[in-house]
Amino acid sequence: MRRESPLVQCVTNYVAMNYAANVLLAAGASPAMVHAPEEAGEFAELASALTINIGTLSSYWLQGMHAAAKAAHASGKPWVLDPVAHFATAFRRQAIEGLLALKPTVIRGNASEIMALAGDVSSGRGVDSGDSVERAEASALALARRTDAVVAVTGVVDFVTDGHAAVCIAGGSELMPKVTAMGCALTCMVGGFLAVTPQQPLEATVTALACFGVAGTQAAQASNGPGSFAWRFIDSLAALNGDVLQAHAQVARA
Amino acid sequence: MRRESPLVQCVTNYVAMNYAANVLLAAGASPAMVHAPEEAGEFAELASALTINIGTLSSYWLQGMHAAAKAAHASGKPWVLDPVAHFATAFRRQAIEGLLALKPTVIRGNASEIMALAGDVSSGRGVDSGDSVERAEASALALARRTDAVVAVTGVVDFVTDGHAAVCIAGGSELMPKVTAMGCALTCMVGGFLAVTPQQPLEATVTALACFGVAGTQAAQASNGPGSFAWRFIDSLAALNGDVLQAHAQVARA
Amino acid sequence: MRRESPLVQCVTNYVAMNYAANVLLAAGASPAMVHAPEEAGEFAELASALTINIGTLSSYWLQGMHAAAKAAHASGKPWVLDPVAHFATAFRRQAIEGLLALKPTVIRGNASEIMALAGDVSSGRGVDSGDSVERAEASALALARRTDAVVAVTGVVDFVTDGHAAVCIAGGSELMPKVTAMGCALTCMVGGFLAVTPQQPLEATVTALACFGVAGTQAAQASNGPGSFAWRFIDSLAALNGDVLQAHAQVARA
Repeated sequence: MRRESPLVQCVTNYVAMNYAANVLLAAGASPAMVHAPEEAGEFAELASALTINIGTLSSYWLQGMHAAAKAAHASGKPWVLDPVAHFATAFRRQAIEGLLALKPTVIRGNASEIMALAGDVSSGRGVDSGDSVERAEASALALARRTDAVVAVTGVVDFVTDGHAAVCIAGGSELMPKVTAMGCALTCMVGGFLAVTPQQPLEATVTALACFGVAGTQAAQASNGPGSFAWRFIDSLAALNGDVLQAHAQVARA
Repeated sequence: MRRESPLVQCVTNYVAMNYAANVLLAAGASPAMVHAPEEAGEFAELASALTINIGTLSSYWLQGMHAAAKAAHASGKPWVLDPVAHFATAFRRQAIEGLLALKPTVIRGNASEIMALAGDVSSGRGVDSGDSVERAEASALALARRTDAVVAVTGVVDFVTDGHAAVCIAGGSELMPKVTAMGCALTCMVGGFLAVTPQQPLEATVTALACFGVAGTQAAQASNGPGSFAWRFIDSLAALNGDVLQAHAQVARA
Repeated sequence: MRRESPLVQCVTNYVAMNYAANVLLAAGASPAMVHAPEEAGEFAELASALTINIGTLSSYWLQGMHAAAKAAHASGKPWVLDPVAHFATAFRRQAIEGLLALKPTVIRGNASEIMALAGDVSSGRGVDSGDSVERAEASALALARRTDAVVAVTGVVDFVTDGHAAVCIAGGSELMPKVTAMGCALTCMVGGFLAVTPQQPLEATVTALACFGVAGTQAAQASNGPGSFAWRFIDSLAALNGDVLQAHAQVARA
C-alpha cells in the first residue's frame, strides 16, 4: 500500500469524509472524494478502487454512485459497498437494491445491516447495530453466495467470508463504536487494499480489518476516551508496518 | 441518556456533522444524520427527537428540513431549531419563517440570532454573535411567549426560558467559541436530552447546557489551545455522569 | 487579523470545511461556509474576502461559486481560487475555465495543478501532486502574468509570484501532506489575510504561507503522527503572534 500509494475514489457520507480521508492517508493511499454524477464515472476509470457508502444519501448522490459503480464494473476495478442503515426507509431499501445489482466486490456492514441485506430479521435501529456478529454469520454466508461478493460483518470480532472460506478478526477497542464514521473509514480502507490486490478480495478485506484491529488496540491503550482515541488511531495506523501487523493481528480461519 | 441511547435525527450543517455526531455518541445517544427530502420525514417518525440547523442551507436541504419537522410535529416528537445566521440573507430570512411555523419545541441560538428572531435590532455578523447574552434576555422571553417554545441563548453565561421561568447556566471556557460547530453540536445535545424527557423541554435544555458547561470547564484545564480542547471536550463528555454533573453544574434560576 | 476578525466566506469542499473553519478561528478570523446559489452572491457582498475550492464539485455548487465570485468581483472584494484536481475530469476542466474568467485575486494549488493550469504537462493524479514546486516555477510565472493574479505553488518549499516579484517560503513538516484538507485550509487562510490587506495580495499570500510554515514546524516537533499533528497545528496557529512569526518565518525573495 505505502509503496504503490493507490488512488482510491470514495463516495462516502458527509460525516465520514474527513476522517476516512485521514485514515487512507495514514495507511499510505491517495484518497479522492469525488461524487457528482457529472464526473464520478469518469473518475472511477482513473482510480484503482472505488468505495460507496449510503450514509447521507440523496437522489443526486445516488446518481453519482451509479455512474461510479457502473464505470468501475465496466473497467474491471474492484468496489466496496457500505449499506448504512439500508433498512431504515423506503428510499434506502430501493437504493440498496439498485447498488447491489451493480455487483460490488466487497460488502461491509454491521451485523444488523448484513442480516437485513440477506433478507433475515434484524434488530437494527438507525446506523447502529442491534445484533451480534455471531448472529449474522449465516446471513453473511448466504449473502456472499447470492451476490458473489466478499461479505464482511464488523463488530467486536469481525467475520469475513466469500461464501466458502470464512475468517474471524479480533482486536480493536470498545471505544471504536463511540467514534463516528469508524466503520465508514474501514470501508474506505478495504478499498485501499483492494486497489493493490484486486484479485484477492478476501485477503484484502481481512488485511484492512486486521490493520484496524491492531491500530485500534494500540490507540486504546493510551486513550482516555473517544476524543483522544480518534487521533491516536490515526497515529497508530500511520506507524503500522508489515512486521507489527504480522506480530499482532488476531486472524483465524472460522 | 446512556441507558436509553435514544435515536436522534440531526439535520445539521456540513461543518458540524462529524463533531456533533461524536458529541452525541460521547453522551450516550445514537445520532443519525438523515436530511434528504426523500426520507427525512419517514426517518423522523423512527427517531425520538429531531434537530434542524440551517448553517449550510440550500433549497434541497430546506425541503428535507420541512419534511422532517412536519413529521416530528405530526407524531408528537420534540424538535430543536438552530437558526444559524438567519438574518444574513433574504434566503435565510424566508427559510427561518417557514421553519418557525412548524413549531419547534426548543430554539437555540447565540444572542444576535435570538434578538433578530424576536424582531429586535442585533449586531450579528456572519455566524458569530455581536451581542451579549444579557442583552438578549428580553428578546428570548418575548420569542418564547410568541412561539410557545423553550428559547436558549448561549454565550458566556447561557439563558434559557419557556416564557415564564428562566434559568442561567455558567461554566464552559473561552476556548469554546474558537472551536467551530460547538454551538451546532450543543443543539444536537439538546435533542438528545429532549428524546429522553420529551415532556420537560426546559429541563432537557438546561441539562444539555449544564453538560457542555461542566465538560467545557474540565477540558479547558488541560488544553493548550482550541485544537486540544476539541478532543478533550469529547473525552470529558464521555466521562461525565450524574454525580459529576450535579457536583459541578452552575445552574441558577434567573 | 486578530484585531479585525474579518468575515471570510469559504465555498470549500465537504472534506475541508470543519478543519478550514478551525484554522481560520485559530488565526482570529470569522469563517462562514455559505455556498448555495440562493445566497452565495448576497453573502459575498457582506464578507471581506471569499475563497473557492472545487474539491467536491457539483453543478449546484458551481452555480454558487459563480454567484459568489461575480459578487466579490463586482464589489471589489478579493477572492482566492483553489483548483483541486482540475485536470482530472472534463467537468472540472470546464468548471475551472469558467472560474478563471471571474478574475481570482490569488490562485493557490500544488505543483501539478498550477502546471496544468498554465497549460504545461504535469504528473498530477487525483488530488495529490506528482511534481516538485521547483518544476512549477515557470508555469506559475506564466499563469500569474496571463491571469493578473498572484499564484502560489505550495509544497516542500512554497513559491509565490505576481508575475514579476517572486518569494519562497520554507518551513512546515512532512506530516502536512498526510493530513487531509491542509492545502484547502491554507487557501482559506490566504482569504483571511487578503481580507485585512486587500491591496497587497502578494504580501497577504506570503504571510498566510509563513504562518502555516511556522505553525507546521512547531506542531511537528511534538507530534507522533498525522493524527496528533492535526490538532497540534491548530494549537500552534492559535498561539502564533507577530513576534514569533517574524522570528521563525523562512521567507526569501526568489
